[in-house]
Amino acid sequence: MSRTQTGIRASSEIFVAKPATQKSAISPTRVEDYAEWYQQVVRAADLAENSPVRGCMVIKPWGYAIWENIQRALDGMFKATGHKNAYFPLFTPKSFLEKEAEHVEGFAKECAVVTHHRLVAGKEGGLVPDPEARLEEPLIVRPTSETIIGAAFAQWVQSYRDLPLLINQWANVVRWELRTRLFLRTAEFLWQEGHTVHATAEDAVEETRRMLDVYADFAENHMAMPVVRGRKTDSERFPGAVDTYSIEAMMQDRKALQAGTSHFLGQNFARASGIRFLDAAGQQQLAWTTSWGVSTRLVGGLIMTHADDDGLVVPPRLAPAHVVIWPVFRGDDTRAPILEAIERLAASLRGASFGGRPIEVETDLRDIGGGDKQWEWIKKGIPLRIEIGPRDVAGGTAMLARRDRGPREKENIPFADLPRRVPELLEAMQRGLLERALAFRDAHTHAIDDRAAFDAFFTPKNAEKPEIHGGFALAHFCGNAACEAEIKDSLKVTIRCVPLGDIDGARAGRVHEPGRCVVCGGESSQRVVFAKSY
Amino acid sequence: MSRTQTGIRASSEIFVAKPATQKSAISPTRVEDYAEWYQQVVRAADLAENSPVRGCMVIKPWGYAIWENIQRALDGMFKATGHKNAYFPLFTPKSFLEKEAEHVEGFAKECAVVTHHRLVAGKEGGLVPDPEARLEEPLIVRPTSETIIGAAFAQWVQSYRDLPLLINQWANVVRWELRTRLFLRTAEFLWQEGHTVHATAEDAVEETRRMLDVYADFAENHMAMPVVRGRKTDSERFPGAVDTYSIEAMMQDRKALQAGTSHFLGQNFARASGIRFLDAAGQQQLAWTTSWGVSTRLVGGLIMTHADDDGLVVPPRLAPAHVVIWPVFRGDDTRAPILEAIERLAASLRGASFGGRPIEVETDLRDIGGGDKQWEWIKKGIPLRIEIGPRDVAGGTAMLARRDRGPREKENIPFADLPRRVPELLEAMQRGLLERALAFRDAHTHAIDDRAAFDAFFTPKNAEKPEIHGGFALAHFCGNAACEAEIKDSLKVTIRCVPLGDIDGARAGRVHEPGRCVVCGGESSQRVVFAKSY
Repeated sequence: MSRTQTGIRASSEIFVAKPATQKSAISPTRVEDYAEWYQQVVRAADLAENSPVRGCMVIKPWGYAIWENIQRALDGMFKATGHKNAYFPLFTPKSFLEKEAEHVEGFAKECAVVTHHRLVAGKEGGLVPDPEARLEEPLIVRPTSETIIGAAFAQWVQSYRDLPLLINQWANVVRWELRTRLFLRTAEFLWQEGHTVHATAEDAVEETRRMLDVYADFAENHMAMPVVRGRKTDSERFPGAVDTYSIEAMMQDRKALQAGTSHFLGQNFARASGIRFLDAAGQQQLAWTTSWGVSTRLVGGLIMTHADDDGLVVPPRLAPAHVVIWPVFRGDDTRAPILEAIERLAASLRGASFGGRPIEVETDLRDIGGGDKQWEWIKKGIPLRIEIGPRDVAGGTAMLARRDRGPREKENIPFADLPRRVPELLEAMQRGLLERALAFRDAHTHAIDDRAAFDAFFTPKNAEKPEIHGGFALAHFCGNAACEAEIKDSLKVTIRCVPLGDIDGARAGRVHEPGRCVVCGGESSQRVVFAKSY
Repeated sequence: MSRTQTGIRASSEIFVAKPATQKSAISPTRVEDYAEWYQQVVRAADLAENSPVRGCMVIKPWGYAIWENIQRALDGMFKATGHKNAYFPLFTPKSFLEKEAEHVEGFAKECAVVTHHRLVAGKEGGLVPDPEARLEEPLIVRPTSETIIGAAFAQWVQSYRDLPLLINQWANVVRWELRTRLFLRTAEFLWQEGHTVHATAEDAVEETRRMLDVYADFAENHMAMPVVRGRKTDSERFPGAVDTYSIEAMMQDRKALQAGTSHFLGQNFARASGIRFLDAAGQQQLAWTTSWGVSTRLVGGLIMTHADDDGLVVPPRLAPAHVVIWPVFRGDDTRAPILEAIERLAASLRGASFGGRPIEVETDLRDIGGGDKQWEWIKKGIPLRIEIGPRDVAGGTAMLARRDRGPREKENIPFADLPRRVPELLEAMQRGLLERALAFRDAHTHAIDDRAAFDAFFTPKNAEKPEIHGGFALAHFCGNAACEAEIKDSLKVTIRCVPLGDIDGARAGRVHEPGRCVVCGGESSQRVVFAKSY
């Protein structure tokens, strides 16, 4: 199979169809069928697969290693901001979920309900839930843990001296989604959920915003995924929250992905769970709480931000391995010196570091063809590939290829230079991926003040590619839910967020100026982000 | 409260009652009421608590940090032996569990069954499982994952080139236990489960034994908990396994704790799940599998191996923090120089390392009494405590206390020496804890060949302390299940394992010699470990 050499440098060309003569490793390509391309990238990079359990995925080693790197980076950031990890029960009694009215409304429709604690032989063979072992009160597999954690916090918090209480949990949760897609929307997913308690509303709001900033920092500096930070409108709030903030990223089909949320819960959950404290004056006060989370959905965001028509591209900071080295033998007598050179090079690279951890090196000595091997690693998105053949050993050099360049673009680098060059290249790739993604988002973010232009922006130019539309529209909104609903109903476009600060990028500088609602013409103090979304 | 100064040095004195004039921080003491002492240590060290969900615990930050350290160390050992992490569904379809007859028999009696995927408003108010949302096939919350992982492995394994397949999962599991105890036996617990596939029985047995050795290495060198490695008798095998191996540790009440298991599953689960491969000759073969796991139960083992009547003692390698430093103020003008000295000392200690990670330092500046502060940290088991007052600052020294010495035993050490001395002290404590535990086990392990002596060994000397008995009896066993059952019925004593190698310790050297079964007098090729157990 002959494949493209275009690579992924030019931001505006990402979505341009290749000439029919150029084949790519992933079929269909993004432009041919974006949704199916995504599934094929997940498969080709061996990240995850569907399981026999409806909506639940199996995360395979390469995908799980990306999640472990996400965890390690975020966990360090949580601890650096004073949070401690703990673990709370998988199950929430039904009555706990019912304590907060909006909350139960939001989750009762899609939860896994445990009703029995034993199986017993059925009359028609096989096992059935034992009627004698029916639970008095059904248990819900946690869809989120505000209420079960709230019950613990009500015990832990007695005095203002116990505040702030800053806790995080790494856990699995279940929401019975009907339409699922690997990583993006699954019935079970892995996540972290931060839960904090504060003495004042100001402290809780500050925490909510701090963790939103931590998420944005992580998204941009580890995932190389630019995000817009903003507040959700009422219709998109977390059930039971006073304010929900989110980070929103543009995927390569120009749709928005909500990549993380941070909630100011006011006193709603403190009231429901009875989280009270004695203040310094000895008065009993109701506490203020927050919660915030990101999930394995981030892996989906990583794929849709960076992968191309040849497969996954992993930002070096999150790569399970940074470099793969394999031998190119020419006859049996070349084997020993090549293998020896590979071992020496691997050891010297492992002595170097990037992004605070040692360079991770894979050596691929499998007895399969060099072409298959190359394409396997390209599809997995490893940042750097090094081949070593007899001439390389003789010349003291190695052939190095970057995942952010065309597959045939290779550079000859002396062995001795590699421990210095590899971290430099990884740093350049990490920066380049962010710049490229930023340029892409900027190219597809437009300030639009006219309703006709707004409608046109979200109307596909090509009826055969209904998913290709304008991208992010920065438009004015009066704050009226009816205007929001009208846009949603007519265009399937929602307000992703009301941006908090400026948005990076030349075209996106016009957020914070007054104007008129794009729907009703009512007054508006700033533009908001309208987009189609996952 | 006046407290003991006896510390924990003398192995044979651990279980000696203190004079009534000496109080201890934990009440009751071990000798007064061992089971209640355990609960009180868990509470005093703030490790975990019961939750409103029957049998499920909340793991609090100090307890969870110990688990995180256990995870980090084990995860490194698993990766060093070639295993990769992955993640599989929380739920197992009922029909999967039924695929292996012994297996379902073992777990059906105590599993959480999900029958519905939605709640709906009930006729009498509140929410009920929606009859319209009943699952066609109930789902079991995984009690272990052989069958759901087996289904994935059946897809992943096609050829002998795919073998060995070496996978590990960190996850939560649920077994509906009726009598639960924090960490030791809970309905939900956290664990890791390794699952591997091999081309031959020999390879699978080798893997089973390799991971047992990894567990033993971890238990002894990280937990400072000596263990006996051995094979389980048929009556104690994992449901569906061909052979189960375990590590068994002696707790301070002389009972055995099964601390980790490694199973050779033969072809039982490969057959049930259809894990087949083409061998080098192109013939289809049934694969051989293993599984192995340790859980948060290890935290219970750590407590019962090392804690004393003043609270928890954490082996330095697993300590959430190694050192706590707090100020002792004498008037306001001493504050600034003391706080400055603490900051400098903390920074210099954090620059040192122990056991491959930087020294973790807590600085406790809370405005509470010095005595309360001291006892809080003693109860939490932090290895080293440092107090700094005005005279220390003036003299350039600090008062240091070790958790493995009496609470009043303190040493004056110059600031400049501490970055060197602290790692040395931690190393000495780590070694000392293992030696102490080994001496304790050795003192309570006896080779017994006479049935009357055997019965006496397991009969409490003091009717008021029924839990205090002899310990581990090394006795001969003919292999006959009836003899094993007779001992179990009459004495509540079981065969913990058939030791593989020698057991460390002078009294325990008599394992591998032939003899006569302590019950029936039949022939026996080696002694086995009989004990009461958790």
